[in-house]
This record gives sequence, structure tokens and C-alpha cells, in this order.
Amino acid sequence: MSQAVINENEVDIVIGALHSDLTTFMNEWKPIFSRFHLIIIKDPDLKEELRIPEGFSVDVYTKSEIERVVGSSTSVRFSGYSCRYFGFLISRKKYVVCIDDDCVPAKDNLGILVDAVAQHIVNLQTPATPFFFNTLYDPFCKGADFVRGYPFSLRSGVDCALSCGLWLNLADLDAPTQALKPGQRNLRYVDAVVTVPSRAMVPVSGINIAFNREVVGPALVPALRLAGEGKLRWETMEDIWCGMCVKVICDHLGLGVKSGLPYVWRTERGDAIQSLKKEWEGVKLMEDVVPFFQSLRLPQSATTAEDCVVEMAKTVKEQLGKVDPMFSAAAEAMEEWVKLWKSVRSV
Amino acid sequence: MSQAVINENEVDIVIGALHSDLTTFMNEWKPIFSRFHLIIIKDPDLKEELRIPEGFSVDVYTKSEIERVVGSSTSVRFSGYSCRYFGFLISRKKYVVCIDDDCVPAKDNLGILVDAVAQHIVNLQTPATPFFFNTLYDPFCKGADFVRGYPFSLRSGVDCALSCGLWLNLADLDAPTQALKPGQRNLRYVDAVVTVPSRAMVPVSGINIAFNREVVGPALVPALRLAGEGKLRWETMEDIWCGMCVKVICDHLGLGVKSGLPYVWRTERGDAIQSLKKEWEGVKLMEDVVPFFQSLRLPQSATTAEDCVVEMAKTVKEQLGKVDPMFSAAAEAMEEWVKLWKSVRSV
Repeated sequence: MSQAVINENEVDIVIGALHSDLTTFMNEWKPIFSRFHLIIIKDPDLKEELRIPEGFSVDVYTKSEIERVVGSSTSVRFSGYSCRYFGFLISRKKYVVCIDDDCVPAKDNLGILVDAVAQHIVNLQTPATPFFFNTLYDPFCKGADFVRGYPFSLRSGVDCALSCGLWLNLADLDAPTQALKPGQRNLRYVDAVVTVPSRAMVPVSGINIAFNREVVGPALVPALRLAGEGKLRWETMEDIWCGMCVKVICDHLGLGVKSGLPYVWRTERGDAIQSLKKEWEGVKLMEDVVPFFQSLRLPQSATTAEDCVVEMAKTVKEQLGKVDPMFSAAAEAMEEWVKLWKSVRSV
Repeated sequence: MSQAVINENEVDIVIGALHSDLTTFMNEWKPIFSRFHLIIIKDPDLKEELRIPEGFSVDVYTKSEIERVVGSSTSVRFSGYSCRYFGFLISRKKYVVCIDDDCVPAKDNLGILVDAVAQHIVNLQTPATPFFFNTLYDPFCKGADFVRGYPFSLRSGVDCALSCGLWLNLADLDAPTQALKPGQRNLRYVDAVVTVPSRAMVPVSGINIAFNREVVGPALVPALRLAGEGKLRWETMEDIWCGMCVKVICDHLGLGVKSGLPYVWRTERGDAIQSLKKEWEGVKLMEDVVPFFQSLRLPQSATTAEDCVVEMAKTVKEQLGKVDPMFSAAAEAMEEWVKLWKSVRSV
């Protein structure tokens, strides 16, 4: 990892609490999180009181705060994994780091605890290189560089807007794969950060991400929800859809998306077999979603993330709306989200 | 690495001998190379007799054999690093593996000797996934898989035509970077193979590559030579140009290009400061070469690598020929190369 000067005042850590007892989670992350301000959003469906250990600078938001801010909006929903988006909405910081509450810090190949927050911020603070592939991965990483043949005019790179981290132990697989290979564990620590090339689509997992909220915040939108979406990652589509939106918007605005380090250690949760029935719905939708985003081009007049989301919503409605009513609902949520984003900013 | 069934009869290892004494090189590689047939091409500029240790199945080709096969052609040149292309031309095997003679086998993070040939063949025998980025890298690698959100329709992948390996110790940097950071060594062993996404351009280094000769052999063409091109990698452009040709052709034909494992250990050679004057020529050319290849589209009528090279040569002549006469010479070499390829096949 490169040396990073991290200003604590520029970072919010957003946690969506899908479980009431955050004690173990928070204590495991204490060495890394305690410097930063935390925003915890309690899943509105969760009945029990949250248990949060002491020693953190934390603001907790529950159903009543969400309703007060969101008001009468019904198209944007903040239940389940989507509760974290409320944290994105109310954060005032430059960077947001967001990690699922079933993950703990990972260790690298040398057995050293990975500071996922620091690595995410380094990823966001160093340039991305979406216009030409560097075979030695991130050229801004310590000890690395641009390889022979890399055009000098492209070496300054572009601003990085989204950093997608990975997972050791339980990888982020879909329910069919998880059900098929219940014993499979991801133990390969790949010591690299890659800029996902421009125009290449990528399945962004919401488990372990960070982004420049000032630049692409409005693009991280809770839009697509499966009818039977539950409280298990492999049942969700919200982050995959959101990631496609962000990637297309970053490509349009000339920003970068990185994938790779940092890893988190995912602990086990849920029964993949039970989820199989639900997940196939999401799996089927991807066959329409991916070609749609691959061919989507935004008008030159869209110069901000807000503009882009609004334009994208129109096209989603026109082109995908006829495929499945869930897409029309997603388009509505995208429009509503931009209104919410603007109204929260104007307070 | 996945389990691979490697048929020795399908593999040629091609070595361009730029140094007369191959004793150390060959002995270091003996545990890996000795199963396979080797084609050694002696750089026609090299005066001394080659020294090759015993214990290998090897055919050596020198200036006189090259002249006999190539005849009166003057636009295709086989001197310096380009001598290896003669090996590509005369090989009859399905796969060609090609490694510079200043490289020895690398060790992985566990200290185990890397079998670069086996890894290259695995890369070529398992599918590539150029149409969607898999965040866990090569999904066909043991223990890995496609992540949630990866469309099932794209999971069968496409045939992989080119495998680009990497380098530990002395990375493949250009002369300015090498001169600026003479002490820099690449010590980061990244345990991954990545499919370079479709339409993303990549600087292919010829130091450590393998390809499916039956599918893309003609696309590996010695075409662009700098006026002052010497006997040092950082002074050459032939492989970078060739790599762009192959990438565009693979994208056009729906084939994949992988980058990453296997690593080789590059030993030191040459004085980067002395090369600086020459290399800037190549560095400047890249500013025209990269946008050209990024926007290049081949006609649907081009359905083989030969067709593609011929079509590409036309466009190079038309569009780049006016920029620099070196490009016109490259276009001529490309046309001549396809003729040579066909004439050698017809014997």
C-alpha cells in the first residue's frame, strides 16, 4: 500500500445493521474504525435494540429518523441491506467506507491485519487508469510503475471515484454457486488493485466498498429490489444494479473504478439452499441488465452524477420497463433518490 | 493453478538467442523445458557459436536457415529480439511459449519454483472472460469462481488465444523509468490471472508469453522496428506493436487475452541511461499508436487472423503512414508476413 495521509474528518464509515448485536463486529474492527466517525443505520425491519460497544464516535439512525428525512417517498426503500443508503444520503464527508456487518478484518499473506479503511482511501486518493491496462496492476502502488509501452500522456490517470474491496473465506457468490459448492472458501489473497477498464462492466459487491461521496454519491442509489429480496447477500441485487449505474457514470464522467485490495474476512451466514428459489430471479434479470448497461450511453449534457442518474432512469424506464415491472420501479426510485439527495443537501 | 493435462506434442518453446552462451539459461530452465521441444533462433547479428547444454530436444535455426525460408523478403526482419518470430513461423505445434534468454524461473510466495510453461498452457486451455469483469480474477482457477452478479450466459467464456506472463526482479519498464529508478525491483508476486476486457488495450511484453499458434499465430507479427532498435528490451517496440495487433484481432474474433501468472525472474542487462536517447522515439510513437488501435475496427469479412492482419495493414498504411514512415514500413512487413505465413504452411 502506498503511504496515505488520511484526514479523519473526511471519512464516514457507514454500517447497515441487519443484526442487533454489533458487539463482536465493532470490537473486531476497533483498531481500524476507532479513529473515524461511524454512521450506523438500523435496518427498519429489525425489532431488537442495537447493541453497540463503547469507544466509538457513532451516530445511529433508526426507522423514525429515516421516515422524518425521507417523508412520504415510497419508491425509495431503506429496508434490509438498502438501509446503508440512508447513511450515504446523510453523510457530509468526502469519503464513505461501507462494510457489511458479517465481516471482520482480514490478514494479508504475512499475517498482518489489513487496514481496509486506509487501503480504500489510498485507492480513492491515487489516480485510476481506465484508458489503458497496466499489466503490473496499480502503477501508483509502492514498488510498482507503468510498464514499457504505457503512453506517457495517460500516466497521470484520472480521479478514482469507487473502490471495490474483496472477501476472504466466504466469497460473494450467488446462491446457486454457493449451494453447489458449500465447502468452497476463498483463501487466495491477491495482492493487487486493478482499475476496471473504461466500458468494461463489473459486478460491484456492496459488502466492502468505498467511494468519493462528493463526486459520485448520488450514483450509489438503492433502486432495484427483487420481489423476494431477503436479509442475505446472495438474495440481493441492489448493489449489483447500483454498481452498474456507478460504472457507467464513471465512464461517462471520466472517473475511475478500482477493484482488488482491501480484503475483509466474511463469516458465514444463512443457508444457500433455502435462498435458491429467490436468487434465480436476480440471476435471470442479469441477462437483461448487463447488455443494457453495456450499451448505455449518456448525453453530453449530463455533467454531474445527479444528471446522469436522472438520464439513466429515463432510459431504464423506456428500454427495460417493458421487460419487467421491477425495472420501472427501479427507474422511479432513481428519480426519487436524486430528489432526496438534493433536498438533503439544501437543508 | 488449475490441473492441466499438457500434451508435450502440442507445445513448442521458442527462444530467441541474443547471447551466444545459453548454458546458464538452459540449465536453470531444465526442470521445466526438458519435456518439450525447443526451437532456438540465433539472432542473425550474433557472430559467436551458440553454446547449448545437452539434455534437450532442440532445433537451432541460424541466419542461413532464415534466409533460405524467407528468401528475398526484405520488409520482414528477423534480427535482434525479432529473431523469435522466425520460430513462430516454422513451428507446427498448437501452442508456442516464448521466454527471453535473460530470464530464469521465478519462485512463488511459498518459495516453490514456478512452472511457467504449465501455467501458460493452463491459461490457454481454460476459457477467457473478456465481456464482463470477474472481481475474483480468473474464475477457472482452483478455488475461484464467478462472483454474484456475473451473467450465467457469459460464464462459459471464450477461447483464450494469448497468455501474457509477468516478471519479478527487473520489471519490463521503459528506459526513462528504468533510468529514473535504477534501484527499483518488482518483488510483488500477485497470485492472479486476469482476462483483459474486450476493447481495453494492453502493452503486451514479449519477454514471457504464450499463444495458440493455430488460432492467432499470424497475428504475432514482427512489424514495427525503431530506427535505432538495439538488443535491449527497453529499446524495442516490436512486441508492443505486435501485442496491440493481437489484442484488436482477438477482440474482433471473439477470443481472449490473459495477463498475470506465470512470473519469470528477470536478470539485469544493459544500461538504461545509455538507452534513453533511443527509447524516446518509441515513447513518442505510442501517443499515436494507442489511439489508433483503440479506435480500429476490422470488417466483418475478416474471419481469420491472416485476414485481420491484412486488413489492419491497409488501415495502418492509410492512417498512420502519413505520421511516420516507420508505420508504412510496419504495414508492409505485416502484408509480407502473411504471405510468408501462408507459403510456409503450404510446403
